[in-house]
Amino acid sequence: MRTCMKDGDAAHDLSHIYRVTAYARDIAEYMPCDREVVMISALLHDIGRPAQDRDETLDHADVGARMAYTFLLPLTDEAFAIRVRDCIRTHRFRAGDQPATVEAQILYDADKLDVCGALGIARTLLYDGAHGIPLSTESGWSFLREYETKLAGLYDRFFTERARELAAPKRSAAEAFHQALLSELQTVSDSQRLLDELLRESNAKVV
Amino acid sequence: MRTCMKDGDAAHDLSHIYRVTAYARDIAEYMPCDREVVMISALLHDIGRPAQDRDETLDHADVGARMAYTFLLPLTDEAFAIRVRDCIRTHRFRAGDQPATVEAQILYDADKLDVCGALGIARTLLYDGAHGIPLSTESGWSFLREYETKLAGLYDRFFTERARELAAPKRSAAEAFHQALLSELQTVSDSQRLLDELLRESNAKVV
Repeated sequence: MRTCMKDGDAAHDLSHIYRVTAYARDIAEYMPCDREVVMISALLHDIGRPAQDRDETLDHADVGARMAYTFLLPLTDEAFAIRVRDCIRTHRFRAGDQPATVEAQILYDADKLDVCGALGIARTLLYDGAHGIPLSTESGWSFLREYETKLAGLYDRFFTERARELAAPKRSAAEAFHQALLSELQTVSDSQRLLDELLRESNAKVV
Repeated sequence: MRTCMKDGDAAHDLSHIYRVTAYARDIAEYMPCDREVVMISALLHDIGRPAQDRDETLDHADVGARMAYTFLLPLTDEAFAIRVRDCIRTHRFRAGDQPATVEAQILYDADKLDVCGALGIARTLLYDGAHGIPLSTESGWSFLREYETKLAGLYDRFFTERARELAAPKRSAAEAFHQALLSELQTVSDSQRLLDELLRESNAKVV
């Protein structure tokens, strides 16, 4: 896992893995589950990221699930390797397969907790900066679009009660930041419209 | 200016120039000043950035000041070109030369307003992501270090009363985000310590 994560971007570095594992361990305390499956899945959940970074057509959840299975097979019984594989395969936020077991739901929730709150916003912006994604645009992908279409909705999509509890204070922080950002961008866009008029008027004189 | 800014990073793209010019225009309404010097300085203040991006030993404020002077000399009288040059030369946050004229102080304040508030935090994180600067580290440069040593102090360093007024609501938004981030990182670091112990204990079993 350490080998796979060493070149991770700032949003998916080792500290992300440790935070997700810590969240997963916390949630696992509150419900009957196979704690070892949860912990190993959390530690290995992003090992497919370097493959996806090299080839964007790959899905790091699918790749990572297969890698984890292959890695575990000589070390554990096959049933254990399969359960870890299935947790990792469905940890990603998307429309496809949903997490089917308690352990898979815990991993999903733990991973999503790390894009909640101020920390989630900070991680998303670091990722956007590294990938040339702008703060906001008229059309196309941007931080604001990601917040509004993905991050803002996560708080209502947790599988476990404990994750909802952990997310509540994070939700307030994220919503306050989003509101402040919108309001600052609005002020700026009003001033910019005035400025555009001014520049058009004085164009001949200035140039 | 458009040619110089077209390859800017997400934090210093054209929209930054327009916002700074809009802020400068707003502040200039509140005090006696040469409004044309203010506006031209604001539009040209970051034209030295591409040079600094290519060669980190260069200071974009120095380079941009000289570029603006050379650009303006055939178009305006020399006194005007000199005043614009001096505004651009001292617009950067640092220990050296301070802005000496009202126009230079307006440009400094306008540029600093754009790293205030939620928008300033978002721009800083995008910049950090693009330059591989982490969110926080034990030692070395990070977003948290930049916030604490530079951004948090800007609110007390404005030259103009109008900039202080514009910054006040931004300050609340930035401080709330910083507090939430620290508190989330603290929770996480507590959990991580527990996790480290757990991993040490179960090391033999897991591997």
